[in-house]
Amino acid sequence: MAKRLGTDTLLLPTRPVILGRGAVGGKLEGEGPLGKQLDAVFLEADMGEESWEKAEVRLQQAAIRRALDSAGCPAEEVELLFGGDLLNQCSATSFALRELGIPLAGLYSACATFALGVAMAALSVDGGGFRRVMAAASSHFCSAEKQFRFPLEYGAMMTPTAQRTATAAGALLLQSAGEPLPPERAAAAHSVCVEKVLFGRVNDLGVADANSMGAAMAPAAADTILRFLKDTNMQPTDLDCILTGDLGEIGSQLLLELAKCEGGVDLAPVHRDGGRLLYDTAQQDVGVGGSGIGCSAAVLCADVLPKLERGEWQRVLYVGTGALLSVITPLQGESIPAIAHGVLFSVAP
Amino acid sequence: MAKRLGTDTLLLPTRPVILGRGAVGGKLEGEGPLGKQLDAVFLEADMGEESWEKAEVRLQQAAIRRALDSAGCPAEEVELLFGGDLLNQCSATSFALRELGIPLAGLYSACATFALGVAMAALSVDGGGFRRVMAAASSHFCSAEKQFRFPLEYGAMMTPTAQRTATAAGALLLQSAGEPLPPERAAAAHSVCVEKVLFGRVNDLGVADANSMGAAMAPAAADTILRFLKDTNMQPTDLDCILTGDLGEIGSQLLLELAKCEGGVDLAPVHRDGGRLLYDTAQQDVGVGGSGIGCSAAVLCADVLPKLERGEWQRVLYVGTGALLSVITPLQGESIPAIAHGVLFSVAP
Repeated sequence: MAKRLGTDTLLLPTRPVILGRGAVGGKLEGEGPLGKQLDAVFLEADMGEESWEKAEVRLQQAAIRRALDSAGCPAEEVELLFGGDLLNQCSATSFALRELGIPLAGLYSACATFALGVAMAALSVDGGGFRRVMAAASSHFCSAEKQFRFPLEYGAMMTPTAQRTATAAGALLLQSAGEPLPPERAAAAHSVCVEKVLFGRVNDLGVADANSMGAAMAPAAADTILRFLKDTNMQPTDLDCILTGDLGEIGSQLLLELAKCEGGVDLAPVHRDGGRLLYDTAQQDVGVGGSGIGCSAAVLCADVLPKLERGEWQRVLYVGTGALLSVITPLQGESIPAIAHGVLFSVAP
Repeated sequence: MAKRLGTDTLLLPTRPVILGRGAVGGKLEGEGPLGKQLDAVFLEADMGEESWEKAEVRLQQAAIRRALDSAGCPAEEVELLFGGDLLNQCSATSFALRELGIPLAGLYSACATFALGVAMAALSVDGGGFRRVMAAASSHFCSAEKQFRFPLEYGAMMTPTAQRTATAAGALLLQSAGEPLPPERAAAAHSVCVEKVLFGRVNDLGVADANSMGAAMAPAAADTILRFLKDTNMQPTDLDCILTGDLGEIGSQLLLELAKCEGGVDLAPVHRDGGRLLYDTAQQDVGVGGSGIGCSAAVLCADVLPKLERGEWQRVLYVGTGALLSVITPLQGESIPAIAHGVLFSVAP
């Protein structure tokens, strides 16, 4: 039974365990600092499909299948999958799941969708009735550009504050704590579990520039992180890492300032951002960093969770950040609401 | 702790109780058979706003506020809201929640979103850690026509198999079973609880006509209903009503045939469809019935749950049905995947 700490954070006493993980990316992501840690890299943007949307379906399926394979778990044993993407009506996820046959709880929380999915999956496993539950999410640079900005053929320039939507997907398989681990996972040095989760509120400080999403999302990230620290009576340095996803360089700077001004805490020693980890922002042409649901999902699954499994880190707060605009809302004069959901991963005792 | 029955159904032993409900609609919905049972009817389609999208935000907020008011519960006491809508990036929900300040878990499951939200809300309350959780969903005829079909000004004709997207919203407030009921609710003859939930799988029998969504969704509805009956070892007549939402006249007929062919059960005595209850399909110009997330949400909250509260009915299986297409997917040659989620409501013992 989950227990409430403070006003917003939930402690999951059964500590659902991560059984499998998958992270895949495109060519540019494969050339980045984490390229060798991805489970698969697709060198062609269309992945052999006839549209960007269908390519994204393949991408998300690849992440899900890697997560299942890494746990030696057939799809039939997964009782529910929380999934989402950025395409209108979340169609990449729906079509990906059509072939896999796993029951689907579709989510939408923009680039915070993977964090929301992991939080929901952990909560479901903790609440009983589920043995194995997944979370999955994807984004694709080409399908996102086409839908949110311009057709690629138009050759639009990036604005100075823009982030690049990652072609990437991540998937996690969670298992209830009481179940025995399969041989593949038992071989890892440490088991990683979900210890706490926290659901975000919609924040909007009035940023209206759809090319400056990091700025729009920073207040939501600060809100969620400060509430988490207050609820749990923790300091940032009690954590090995606070991984936001994805604020980019500008949003990350604003987060540090907001946390200092509003909460009097210095996040700098432990803060990392998925949008600055997936790419070499100095060498690769990605604006102020990566974004897109798949960005932090891939960074979490390919880099952060392995650090916990190896025992290099003990506790990581993953804070997915999402900008809740549509193409239409800025045209109607609206600023950009944002949300951030938090998941505390820790090495299982 | 939730318990699994059979392969897919979850029993919620704590039986989360419905504390408040809200159902609102537009003018046409107000003129329908359930018009007098709606908590509010908006006579102007724009609801005083400058766009259809902003009108839908107001609509969803109105349903949420009615649900809160009916329980005498301030928004601050709600710990999580599961919400969604049909607009790209689920923007009606995000903007509605920006003003309300309740933590948001955004969902997308097309017209099955309200059933998914109620199932998730009940599961969360049952799992502990939450005292009060909401589900909410909306759709608006004008914003949906603009986004999915043609601008209203174009004056497009409905095809013979099309359903009309309802301008409607519904909201439910659930409370953990151990908490005392507030005076407003204690006055109702019976308390209604969520007894079981079941999450759907993506079904696709190859229907590719985006103007025949009832046909595309009927297989998903049949799949979910047959699995529920098998898991629980129940007959249709053990239920007072199976409410699907929303198959319309064609989809409802196909559901009855599929249930008979595939499961050997006759659903006719207890099956009702939200799309045929919200409107007088013979008198009102709504094609083969209503659709849209808000349709079955409003029918459930305005008509079905009150029947349970009055003790006229004891047990209702609510099966939300969603067509998981986007505007793009049929243009790319895809058929229409569909999903159905189930919630068993019963009069609290």
